[in-house]
Amino acid sequence: MTRTREPESKSKTSSPSSSSTGMKLIVPLQGVVQGRGGILLGSLIPCALFYFFQLYLKKRRRSNDKHPSSNPPSPSSSFPELPRTPSRSNLSSRGSLTGVRLSRLATTISDDDSAYYVGLNRASRDPYHKLTNPDGIIQLGLSDNTLSLDLIGDWMRKWGSGGDDGLSINGIATYQAFDGVDELKLALSDFMHQVMGGSVHFDTSNMVLTAGATPAIEILSFCLADHGNAFLVPTPYYPGFDRDVKWRPGVDLIPVHCRSADNFNLSMTALEQAYSQARKRGVKVRGILVSNPSNPVGNMLTQDMLYNLIDFAEDKNIHLIVDEVFAGSTYGSEKFVSVAEILESDSEYIDNRRIHIIYGLSKDLALAGFRVGVIYSFNKNVLATARKLCRFSSISAPTQRLVTSMLSDKKFIQDYFETNRNRMRQVHHEFVDALSKIGIKCAKSSGGMFCWADMSGLIKPYSEKGELELWEKFMSIAKINITPGSACHCIEPGWFRICFTTMSLDEIPLVIERIRRVVEVCKFSS
Amino acid sequence: MTRTREPESKSKTSSPSSSSTGMKLIVPLQGVVQGRGGILLGSLIPCALFYFFQLYLKKRRRSNDKHPSSNPPSPSSSFPELPRTPSRSNLSSRGSLTGVRLSRLATTISDDDSAYYVGLNRASRDPYHKLTNPDGIIQLGLSDNTLSLDLIGDWMRKWGSGGDDGLSINGIATYQAFDGVDELKLALSDFMHQVMGGSVHFDTSNMVLTAGATPAIEILSFCLADHGNAFLVPTPYYPGFDRDVKWRPGVDLIPVHCRSADNFNLSMTALEQAYSQARKRGVKVRGILVSNPSNPVGNMLTQDMLYNLIDFAEDKNIHLIVDEVFAGSTYGSEKFVSVAEILESDSEYIDNRRIHIIYGLSKDLALAGFRVGVIYSFNKNVLATARKLCRFSSISAPTQRLVTSMLSDKKFIQDYFETNRNRMRQVHHEFVDALSKIGIKCAKSSGGMFCWADMSGLIKPYSEKGELELWEKFMSIAKINITPGSACHCIEPGWFRICFTTMSLDEIPLVIERIRRVVEVCKFSS
Repeated sequence: MTRTREPESKSKTSSPSSSSTGMKLIVPLQGVVQGRGGILLGSLIPCALFYFFQLYLKKRRRSNDKHPSSNPPSPSSSFPELPRTPSRSNLSSRGSLTGVRLSRLATTISDDDSAYYVGLNRASRDPYHKLTNPDGIIQLGLSDNTLSLDLIGDWMRKWGSGGDDGLSINGIATYQAFDGVDELKLALSDFMHQVMGGSVHFDTSNMVLTAGATPAIEILSFCLADHGNAFLVPTPYYPGFDRDVKWRPGVDLIPVHCRSADNFNLSMTALEQAYSQARKRGVKVRGILVSNPSNPVGNMLTQDMLYNLIDFAEDKNIHLIVDEVFAGSTYGSEKFVSVAEILESDSEYIDNRRIHIIYGLSKDLALAGFRVGVIYSFNKNVLATARKLCRFSSISAPTQRLVTSMLSDKKFIQDYFETNRNRMRQVHHEFVDALSKIGIKCAKSSGGMFCWADMSGLIKPYSEKGELELWEKFMSIAKINITPGSACHCIEPGWFRICFTTMSLDEIPLVIERIRRVVEVCKFSS
Repeated sequence: MTRTREPESKSKTSSPSSSSTGMKLIVPLQGVVQGRGGILLGSLIPCALFYFFQLYLKKRRRSNDKHPSSNPPSPSSSFPELPRTPSRSNLSSRGSLTGVRLSRLATTISDDDSAYYVGLNRASRDPYHKLTNPDGIIQLGLSDNTLSLDLIGDWMRKWGSGGDDGLSINGIATYQAFDGVDELKLALSDFMHQVMGGSVHFDTSNMVLTAGATPAIEILSFCLADHGNAFLVPTPYYPGFDRDVKWRPGVDLIPVHCRSADNFNLSMTALEQAYSQARKRGVKVRGILVSNPSNPVGNMLTQDMLYNLIDFAEDKNIHLIVDEVFAGSTYGSEKFVSVAEILESDSEYIDNRRIHIIYGLSKDLALAGFRVGVIYSFNKNVLATARKLCRFSSISAPTQRLVTSMLSDKKFIQDYFETNRNRMRQVHHEFVDALSKIGIKCAKSSGGMFCWADMSGLIKPYSEKGELELWEKFMSIAKINITPGSACHCIEPGWFRICFTTMSLDEIPLVIERIRRVVEVCKFSS
């Protein structure tokens, strides 16, 4: 605000003196050159003078601007510097909370106001434990999966006792390829083939490995869009996208609202509308970002919808980013279709250079702590840039070695998937069933680690405010952390994401009992 | 270039029509109001018209700018959008190498033109091996340390066979604290205490752990400076700084040239000069970035110089970032002084909130592949931001577990340091001695993994061109990759960084023999 106001007031106060100086030059000139020509000159010369004065002011302003643009002023600028203020006078200036000035990013980024992060933090400070902290907060706000941790543990023990076949120092202490070692890429390509039902092959040369899917999304954003550009994203969406796409890449997310009436499936009309509205506002849309299976709803994109999205991206000359981190965490009867599958089958007709896939092991192999993410892209230029940028987000070599061994054990991976899928299906079924018995319905879902539960009947008023009040009741009365729909930018109030993969079958009655308390309080007070 | 030219030409072509439209209004007015008042009005009114026309053009230009600034155009802009071009017409536009548009970052960042990276890549494609590739390129361009890898290997074998005490899955599979687990911070604080000669204590609450020192520098840059701001950095400097500070944070590096006559020690006069010249150019300087021990020279900052730097930062109200990754890789008689030591002893007089330290295990423990870096800062706001940003650069949990175990083995660490220091000292001494026998002198150094060698006598012409020609001879004739001074922004041509910690004592004669070939070719041709 200050920035746009300052120059105007400057030029206003300066203009009288400037034109009166101009007058001294112009008036005699007009005396000499008589007639229409004189009047013309008398009009043109001040115009020219004023124009150059504006130019001068503009240049001067640029070199002294308190809030510089992304380009530093030209070093060749010949205009004098404003008198330098003593450094101490900066102490209380903007961006300097403590007297020591920080960047605008440091003073503006914040995840503290989102109920998603607030909930995670509160739950981590007072975590439930059956024996040591039975009144603690049960964490159902994080898509961790502990259902099949025992299998991973068994494998690790076996591997750890393997002696020299285990973790030796050769080829892990010194610098390694920052975008991932070839052995891990190969193992991941086989693994992803297996996860996607054997229907598509993944080429290791299209892979860049990163320290988790989070930096994979950030790096892709840096590659595809400039600061101030935007991606379209169907809502409700994963709360972390805001952090990954907006913070450092500075790319905006434009919501494309999906509705409960359509089980939160994306409508192409809404997508088209959001795109053209953004263009009308002058925003440059550079891509569509979708998660499939969807986080937080858990529904999946049909093959038809994937074709529609590809066509849309092609038509608008924008990118399509599909986050498939839950590809192997499905439990329904529907078959998951990777966008890679479509590209493989229709490779002649589709320009695959605008399609990019995000993958990782945090969900499908429940190894969130390992930080293994994948950018899978068909665009050589994106891959080249991502390979440079993953210097800042590379996976440590011991972990690469460990994960390579684990993924190469095909028998183990197959057993894990079978067992994990059965356990997820069972817990999901029991939990959704128990919720419905206390009057809470969930959206139809077939993947992901969460239920998307409709509690709109429990909120009052029917608004984000009501939703957050209900969320607060879950925290304080039920001692359960779940994610309110507003944190996922859901347009309809009253929906909540409840992760079910951090509770065992045995714990469902306890969780339901705690939820019931809130339901009763709400009924009682209405 | 296009950007600044375009508006001018626009306003030039538009001004005649604008002032002639203006004339139609002004001329009758001047006819009515006679005398000096008429002339005044005849001058003022076109001025005002012209001013508003400029404003209109400026606004219109902003909303249609082909290269948007970091802020998207205001949605409330009331000026009509330019006719929308069909998306297909974007295919051959700037930033679209392949028809699919990428970000400016993706099309501009490049490390390919620096001899530092070119050399690393060429050496990695044809690596020397005594038996399998004796004519391959010897890699002396990377500060890896393989001198004491055997010790780490022994420790890992012992640890790996420890069964359940080794790597179990508990507390590593699920999400962990992204800024590092407490156990590792504690172990690192003890380790750093030991490395810095027991003279200073490190508080775990001042630590943020990252996947290597590289993202630590990048994250600090994001915290301390805005896009377009700058850091002062003494030359010659580590080639990676350009990548870490400039690429994504967009912070410029202003060289402060050091000279061979001072053994490349920093002069405060040069620093003051660089600062005031930058200010005169309108550049906002936000910090000083130094490495201590210096990479690539290997000299160290004295206690006095550290006080000078702290005073300078205080006086200018800017930050001081000290990269101490080679703190424990010293072999001379001089004692290394950490800036933390000064802050601890003079805590009452120094505003420590502007001092930040970079550390990591890639050098001092030779674990580059592990990606363990540390931001050590006294500024709570910086730490809070860094904790958020390290979400994109966190260390995987198995590695954290492994490193915690390693660092906690005090006896091992002490043995490692003693042995490694002796080996470094010996190889350094023999290598520098052998170099001097073939006429190549090195700068006086006491830390780091490299010699800073003066080969100015071998280059012709005495310029960067001559230096790069000599470097090419090293690659093609000697089959040795070293780093030319120009890649380190050294102002004097003919200096080269040669890493000596990737060769054993046995290999020195081979390396010297290869270097001698180049020396002889140069002498012969001169």
